Amino acid sequence: MKYPFLLLLVLSTSLHAQQIVEINSSRVNDNLQALKQFGLNAQQGNDRVAYSDHERNARSFLIEKLQKLGLTVNIDQAGNLSARRPGRDPKAPIIAFGSHIDAVPNGGHYDGNVGSIGALEVMETLVEKNIQTTHPFELLIFTNEEGGVFGSRALAGEIKPEALAVVTASGYTNAEGVQRIGGDPENIEVVIRKPEDLHAFMELHIEQGSTLYDQNIAIGVVEGIVGLKWWDVTISGFANHAGTTPMNRRKDAMLAAAEFTLMVNRVIKSYRGRQVGTVGRIAAFPGAPNVIPGKVVLSLEIRDLDSSKIAQLFEHIQQEATLIGEQYNTSFNFSPIDATSNPALTDPRIQQIIRDQADRLGLSHIDLPSGAGHDAQDMALLTPTGMIFIPSVDGISHSPQEYSTPEAIAQGTELLLNTLLEIDRTPLGNQ
Amino acid sequence: MKYPFLLLLVLSTSLHAQQIVEINSSRVNDNLQALKQFGLNAQQGNDRVAYSDHERNARSFLIEKLQKLGLTVNIDQAGNLSARRPGRDPKAPIIAFGSHIDAVPNGGHYDGNVGSIGALEVMETLVEKNIQTTHPFELLIFTNEEGGVFGSRALAGEIKPEALAVVTASGYTNAEGVQRIGGDPENIEVVIRKPEDLHAFMELHIEQGSTLYDQNIAIGVVEGIVGLKWWDVTISGFANHAGTTPMNRRKDAMLAAAEFTLMVNRVIKSYRGRQVGTVGRIAAFPGAPNVIPGKVVLSLEIRDLDSSKIAQLFEHIQQEATLIGEQYNTSFNFSPIDATSNPALTDPRIQQIIRDQADRLGLSHIDLPSGAGHDAQDMALLTPTGMIFIPSVDGISHSPQEYSTPEAIAQGTELLLNTLLEIDRTPLGNQ
Repeated sequence: MKYPFLLLLVLSTSLHAQQIVEINSSRVNDNLQALKQFGLNAQQGNDRVAYSDHERNARSFLIEKLQKLGLTVNIDQAGNLSARRPGRDPKAPIIAFGSHIDAVPNGGHYDGNVGSIGALEVMETLVEKNIQTTHPFELLIFTNEEGGVFGSRALAGEIKPEALAVVTASGYTNAEGVQRIGGDPENIEVVIRKPEDLHAFMELHIEQGSTLYDQNIAIGVVEGIVGLKWWDVTISGFANHAGTTPMNRRKDAMLAAAEFTLMVNRVIKSYRGRQVGTVGRIAAFPGAPNVIPGKVVLSLEIRDLDSSKIAQLFEHIQQEATLIGEQYNTSFNFSPIDATSNPALTDPRIQQIIRDQADRLGLSHIDLPSGAGHDAQDMALLTPTGMIFIPSVDGISHSPQEYSTPEAIAQGTELLLNTLLEIDRTPLGNQ
Repeated sequence: MKYPFLLLLVLSTSLHAQQIVEINSSRVNDNLQALKQFGLNAQQGNDRVAYSDHERNARSFLIEKLQKLGLTVNIDQAGNLSARRPGRDPKAPIIAFGSHIDAVPNGGHYDGNVGSIGALEVMETLVEKNIQTTHPFELLIFTNEEGGVFGSRALAGEIKPEALAVVTASGYTNAEGVQRIGGDPENIEVVIRKPEDLHAFMELHIEQGSTLYDQNIAIGVVEGIVGLKWWDVTISGFANHAGTTPMNRRKDAMLAAAEFTLMVNRVIKSYRGRQVGTVGRIAAFPGAPNVIPGKVVLSLEIRDLDSSKIAQLFEHIQQEATLIGEQYNTSFNFSPIDATSNPALTDPRIQQIIRDQADRLGLSHIDLPSGAGHDAQDMALLTPTGMIFIPSVDGISHSPQEYSTPEAIAQGTELLLNTLLEIDRTPLGNQ
């Protein structure tokens, strides 16, 4: 009589593993609306910059929710908020998941918030349905994502002492801000995580681009977070009187800058792939309507999932710039800006789990890179990492007009939960 | 016995009129070098901005020179420095000539100075050679040319009350500055000249461009001072995340601005003539390397001798801008900046006198417009006006590297003197 019961238990567990676990679609969207109130401004934007009172209040709101679930909430020395739910195996490494609730000034209500509230819904569902996982599950709300992925960098041991002194959008330095949210900046190195303590990390996020929305696809399986490189490009010509210098005698740095800007766009688009290149900042010197610019300084940014492709594109752009320089009697100088981030690839096994679970849930999906930086990119330094995107309406982000539908949010959250549960059942061999 | 003597007198006067009157080439260049010392800075540039101590000292230097010639020096209510030498006919209207000695910050030593020292040399020569003119000759050193042709505008009655409150490069307002150099800003309207009191105005100046230098021509006969129009051009696209927005989904105002800048250059050059067009100032918003510019504001300047041609060019540029707007999903808005100056034509009879005198002196010459503004343009509102250009080496101006050769300066000055003497003999019918 013992064996049939055991068999049933095994079957039940196994069947349970194959079952779709549903989340509460209303609850996740209600929670998102409730979170929205912290920092909502007159333009319907989000002023909840990191370390602000708005963010502190929003954190209290989440802490209360998590404590009501019976979870122990912790604020680490870097200010990261976490809530852990024990697993069946007390020695098993942690499965972490989460996002951030800070915003850029006058930002939107979906960037970070969806992944944070989605993570809360994972915990709500696990508790409500009394689902026992093998690994401990840890929800993470990272510190100051928008100001340089501060909290996740701290976990990965990537914070330099200078970063603590940086003044953030709130007006507080990171050190002051971390203290304001309950951290201990002087002992920040304590938070560094060991890879062997982690099984995986997952983040749900809005795409912030329009690829999914344009193609009417429910889910983006993130292949990785692109790396980016920045340069200051200085174009030197010769400043002269705009009235007395004939058109054919000019060494107009502005004309060369214009050719350069169009060339960057052309070169970037001439390669296969999803690389992007941008000239976002420009100044002409001396900068008067009646003086031919003798100098122009502009920014060049290139992003791609592949560092060698970034290098190849930059090489191509430099070559073309030399020709433009000759054409316009000007010269180009490229000076790297220290804002490099290397591409961070997600784990292929987790990508496949996301695809499989999306199929099970009947959600259309494509693979795509993340053009924006995320906490997941630093977590990927520590542990196998995966990332799920849901569509941003019109691809708008960092704006009060940022929007994702309640349906998309519920779908993304349900996929997050089921992916986490499958990861819980999958040895990833990283311990 | 009476008639032959009278005949001889008539012949002598007539012969005298046909003779070339030589200036003292060493003296004019020595005086220019002496003037250079007032405001000479470490970069060999000229810091003699209007109303500065440097300019006050330079004025004292000139006043002393003029008084030594026995001339009466006057400072008018607008601060213009003048020295008058009576003519044979006390009722004859004045022949005025001169330029300015103020400079742009870290400017050159030839712009304005050559015409001022040339005017002094005219007086030196007339006194030294005891040449009696029919008309009174008046040397004029104008107030604050570089800061908006203040002194000549005052003579033409073109100063608005606001101009007195403008803070100039010296840090003083025009009102304070005028007071510092002996004027009386509260009674500035007293200086307005009546057309019937003037016979003509002449200015000698460096070209500030490279047309004469490139073609190795000694003299430019100025056809007129070009008019200029300025616009602020605002290009509106849509600011978005440079990492997450695919290249083909952008509404990048910077790309449209680059196309616009190149198009302006192309359109301006596609017409016959010497019109110029310049984009000298540009700003992208929000102006970060990682944000696609949603807005770019840049300046457009067009100059030509013909107002209708400026209008035609602007019309053409607007049409092309509309096409660029469509191509890049952006829109263009043109807002005129209140810095318009209308073209000022020189007197054709004086142009011809300059050509004839240049031929007599064996100086090569061409006709050309002045692309820069000059005091002559306001004097042209009052009286028949002429202007002589000498070559600027490499066309450089408003720079410490500004240079004209001693030979060119002497040639220009001799041409100025002989032109003035011929004007003195020529009825211009404007009285």
